[in-house]
Amino acid sequence: MAKELSSREDNYSQWYTDLVTKADLAENSAVRGCMVIKPYGYAIWESMQAALDRMFKDTGHQNAYFPLFIPKSFFSKEASHVEGFAKECAVVTHYRLKNDPNGKGIVVDEDAKLEEELIVRPTSETIIWDTYRNWIQSYRDLPLLINQWANVVRWEMRTRLFLRTTEFLWQEGHTAHETMGEAIAEAEQMLRVYAEFAEEWMAMPVLRGVKSPNERFAGAVETYCIEALMQDGKALQAGTSHFLGQNFAKAFDVKFLSKENKQEYVWATSWGVSTRLMGALVMSHSDDHGLVIPPKLAPIQVVIVPIYRNAEQLEMVAVKAREIKKSLEARGLRVKFDDRDTQKPGFKFTEWEFKGVPVRIAIGPRDLENETVEVARRDTLEKEVLQMTGLDQKLVNILEQVQKNLFQKALDFRNLNTFKVDSWDEFLVQIEKGGFILAHWDGTAETEQKIKDETKATIRLIPLTNDGKPGKCVYSGKPSTQRVYFARAY
Amino acid sequence: MAKELSSREDNYSQWYTDLVTKADLAENSAVRGCMVIKPYGYAIWESMQAALDRMFKDTGHQNAYFPLFIPKSFFSKEASHVEGFAKECAVVTHYRLKNDPNGKGIVVDEDAKLEEELIVRPTSETIIWDTYRNWIQSYRDLPLLINQWANVVRWEMRTRLFLRTTEFLWQEGHTAHETMGEAIAEAEQMLRVYAEFAEEWMAMPVLRGVKSPNERFAGAVETYCIEALMQDGKALQAGTSHFLGQNFAKAFDVKFLSKENKQEYVWATSWGVSTRLMGALVMSHSDDHGLVIPPKLAPIQVVIVPIYRNAEQLEMVAVKAREIKKSLEARGLRVKFDDRDTQKPGFKFTEWEFKGVPVRIAIGPRDLENETVEVARRDTLEKEVLQMTGLDQKLVNILEQVQKNLFQKALDFRNLNTFKVDSWDEFLVQIEKGGFILAHWDGTAETEQKIKDETKATIRLIPLTNDGKPGKCVYSGKPSTQRVYFARAY
Repeated sequence: MAKELSSREDNYSQWYTDLVTKADLAENSAVRGCMVIKPYGYAIWESMQAALDRMFKDTGHQNAYFPLFIPKSFFSKEASHVEGFAKECAVVTHYRLKNDPNGKGIVVDEDAKLEEELIVRPTSETIIWDTYRNWIQSYRDLPLLINQWANVVRWEMRTRLFLRTTEFLWQEGHTAHETMGEAIAEAEQMLRVYAEFAEEWMAMPVLRGVKSPNERFAGAVETYCIEALMQDGKALQAGTSHFLGQNFAKAFDVKFLSKENKQEYVWATSWGVSTRLMGALVMSHSDDHGLVIPPKLAPIQVVIVPIYRNAEQLEMVAVKAREIKKSLEARGLRVKFDDRDTQKPGFKFTEWEFKGVPVRIAIGPRDLENETVEVARRDTLEKEVLQMTGLDQKLVNILEQVQKNLFQKALDFRNLNTFKVDSWDEFLVQIEKGGFILAHWDGTAETEQKIKDETKATIRLIPLTNDGKPGKCVYSGKPSTQRVYFARAY
Repeated sequence: MAKELSSREDNYSQWYTDLVTKADLAENSAVRGCMVIKPYGYAIWESMQAALDRMFKDTGHQNAYFPLFIPKSFFSKEASHVEGFAKECAVVTHYRLKNDPNGKGIVVDEDAKLEEELIVRPTSETIIWDTYRNWIQSYRDLPLLINQWANVVRWEMRTRLFLRTTEFLWQEGHTAHETMGEAIAEAEQMLRVYAEFAEEWMAMPVLRGVKSPNERFAGAVETYCIEALMQDGKALQAGTSHFLGQNFAKAFDVKFLSKENKQEYVWATSWGVSTRLMGALVMSHSDDHGLVIPPKLAPIQVVIVPIYRNAEQLEMVAVKAREIKKSLEARGLRVKFDDRDTQKPGFKFTEWEFKGVPVRIAIGPRDLENETVEVARRDTLEKEVLQMTGLDQKLVNILEQVQKNLFQKALDFRNLNTFKVDSWDEFLVQIEKGGFILAHWDGTAETEQKIKDETKATIRLIPLTNDGKPGKCVYSGKPSTQRVYFARAY
């Protein structure tokens, strides 16, 4: 199995696609640009959802569900939003099919043409703010803190599993507030939630900052983001949180009676992460042997493989294996006992390694005699023989170490691949090697665009806190107030 | 609030719509036929999802995700399926909008017309079986036990919140098996899962059986169903589980190498329940005072309302209330302490009654002195004063009683409204009064259709086990092997 995987060095892009499909995470469907998320991949997404959903609820949000379809006219209401979104979308024009009068299967029934076309949501600001108009009358109705788990569609010409697909799954938070300050605090809070999730659950270190005006969400006043560095030196935007000002409130006429008894427009945020995180997870930790999944998100955290020569030995080993499984499950661990007798241990070792299970236990007749097991870690590929005594706690500890080690490894990698660059020549050399470039920028869209045209590098983010060290723009030489992060990106 | 609710007797249909919208479960959206599921309603749906998802996983199923869109040609592959589904559906014909050259907003870009139209899934058999072809080669790949949580779209002309909407949320299980026997066993198992969920979680008694050929799912060999009786005497189909034979395997050419080394077509099932269950829940238990939610599904199981005259009293009461809340939460209960000082206790009582919270606790200064609380049950509207000692356990017991009582009440209602009918005259009289009619039927589609035309009653189900008492068809007088259930239905 692992033999069919391209190496990262040979072809990173092919390695990624091979891994996602062969490790049963996802595959392309019969519908151009849409993927099938397979059970093993979906189980990881479910772990992500559960952790995020808990964090959203702990910060006071509730889930709701809004329509899949958005009337075309809604998009025209927020001027910059329509530019950003309405162009690349799936348009529903009819609501019925009929038998082809010429007997060739079924055809669209032209009598069933919609008066107004419906857009399959690429994001839900418009339909949600149209709804909020009726939900918000007074300051007592605020803040309104709502999240939606949903599928969205953005028509993409070039797609890649998880990273860029026509349909994807995501969550979108949409909140409404009395004041600008509260809305900004909410947008910043959700950025922290995303960063915490990325680092503590995905073991993926992220930079936090704001986007340059060019890279802002269509309709936002400020876009906060987290950015991670993939193993090939390219950056990946892992989550965004937008302060929307009063743009959508004005577009959809959402006003409230303030404490001062005045009619005021509501302040808004929106924030989202998507199945793109699955791609980020794969590209952060996995290696030429297959997936590496952080224990906190792994559908199977510990796999137990029995070693035996005959049915009698299997029976003895199985008793012990089931005992270990039960005991670990009582600790809340997700454990699989792989007792298939159609496959040899070596095959199973390779398979579970490929599937990224954090810890593997092998147990055979000799182990039973010695009261030991062999434990292998997926992150380091190291094996050790452990005494059975206190095994549960040892495994809990090992899983914690794996989680921490994956984060530290990724952090070390990012640190090694972040470069302060002060000259354009250096920039041109460094950008070819990959990684983040921390350089001064004169703050103009013009320079940003020129850098992008010449190097394909974009400003990934502007750090939230200015380090107070002004300098000269790496491209134009004009004054700059702070360094920003450049990279080529997914 | 409750005053604005129509009574069930005056206008059951209006009562239902009033309740769903005013209790914040759902509302109509700006998109015809599509609803917005509001946070309170969505929280109940989440409880339902969590319970069902656990039951699916406990029976060996895994979740996955398949595309929203289905190529039009897929529908033509299974002949009866296309008749049943492809007609009333949302059709995506274009993938881009552009600025209107006449400056009137945005219009469909005719240059971006799809070669083949895409259908927004009304159900996913076709796209899933097209995928399964690549997943199934040998008997070792079977059974394949997969479930999907998703939104689906069926273009409905007359919609009602939850009961019949153009877009709705559901789960759809799609399984593949080696033998006919295994597939039938799976379809029957999932019917049992649905019945158990309806009865134990929703406190809604259901009849189990199979549909007549007329009422079968388009593409099924046998459709199993659960049917519940609503308070207005109409039946509601609450879940279906289909044995699909080899129909989809043949349509999508899904074969496997059997243990006997032969290429054989795979046997299939599919099964689903939807947000329609939300409507069934409301119509099973709620009353003229508002919602009644069974404790197991209630987003808030216990609400604590403080009684006080001044800030000092509130402070004292709040200390005790928070202590009770914490202690109940430690038992796993979902508790809200309603400490809003903008509303009086009477308003709060009415509001939580309206929202169907199973148990309300009122606590005031006198209760503190006496070490008591007042506890009110939503199902019986009875109040009693309880000693604080052992309060947690008492409340746990009360919630269990509420759950049981709701089921028993609904069961008694159904028993009272199920009638054995042996003559057509009696049938005509009884059907006007509502309820289930258990009558003999000659087994022909012709008679079934005539009964429907004359009375609007349909065969809701044929019991799984024949009681062995043959008779004469209530309509045609021809021989009948067993009684079947008739009713008017949602």
